[in-house]
Amino acid sequence: METMGRHVISELWGCNFDKLNDMEVIERTFVDAALKSGAEIREVAFHKFAPQGVSGVVIISESHLTIHSFPEHGYASIDVYTCGDLDPNIAANYIADALEAETRETIEMPRGMGPVRSQIKQTASMV
Amino acid sequence: METMGRHVISELWGCNFDKLNDMEVIERTFVDAALKSGAEIREVAFHKFAPQGVSGVVIISESHLTIHSFPEHGYASIDVYTCGDLDPNIAANYIADALEAETRETIEMPRGMGPVRSQIKQTASMV
Repeated sequence: METMGRHVISELWGCNFDKLNDMEVIERTFVDAALKSGAEIREVAFHKFAPQGVSGVVIISESHLTIHSFPEHGYASIDVYTCGDLDPNIAANYIADALEAETRETIEMPRGMGPVRSQIKQTASMV
Repeated sequence: METMGRHVISELWGCNFDKLNDMEVIERTFVDAALKSGAEIREVAFHKFAPQGVSGVVIISESHLTIHSFPEHGYASIDVYTCGDLDPNIAANYIADALEAETRETIEMPRGMGPVRSQIKQTASMV
């Protein structure tokens, strides 16, 4: 198995409050995002916090997807990390759309390739 | 709950093959790392791949710790993301020591604070 991977870090703001606070919606969104990107799902673990917020992960054969949501701030912190030929942006874009993010900042970081400092791709966009 | 967090990304090379391929060792290391950093553990999910390699996550109240190990390359891809007053480096350092990493590259990235591009702290070290 090759070590090379792509890790997309997305900061989503202005998301839909109700979706950010609904563990079932988030879990389904993440499972669907993984499948749409062509990943093979291995483990799914989500947790609902009181009074609000959801954290969770989908472990895939090709690495992972994670979320931490802060409904009261309209904020979701997203990671999509894939190895192999998968494009992590497919899942990250799907999640941003599903959570109705108004603004989104994304960094893509190479993993498992040696020094990373000069390789970080950064983008910020209004969606 | 405040959105601000610290996300440490560590690329560990030259790790101990047997440890990287032992799911129980890795799971215990990650649980201990979370506890040593003062985190509250919420979910633990690890997966052993054939013929080798381990992926897993510890979801904590303060975000998460993840690993993807590639024993045949001596490589482990580590993320430790904490919110609140926790220092993610405590767990990341503990993990690097436990896996006997010979070289380590670490990036610390702020999360939930708005634009991140100018805030990334990068360090590389021989350990």
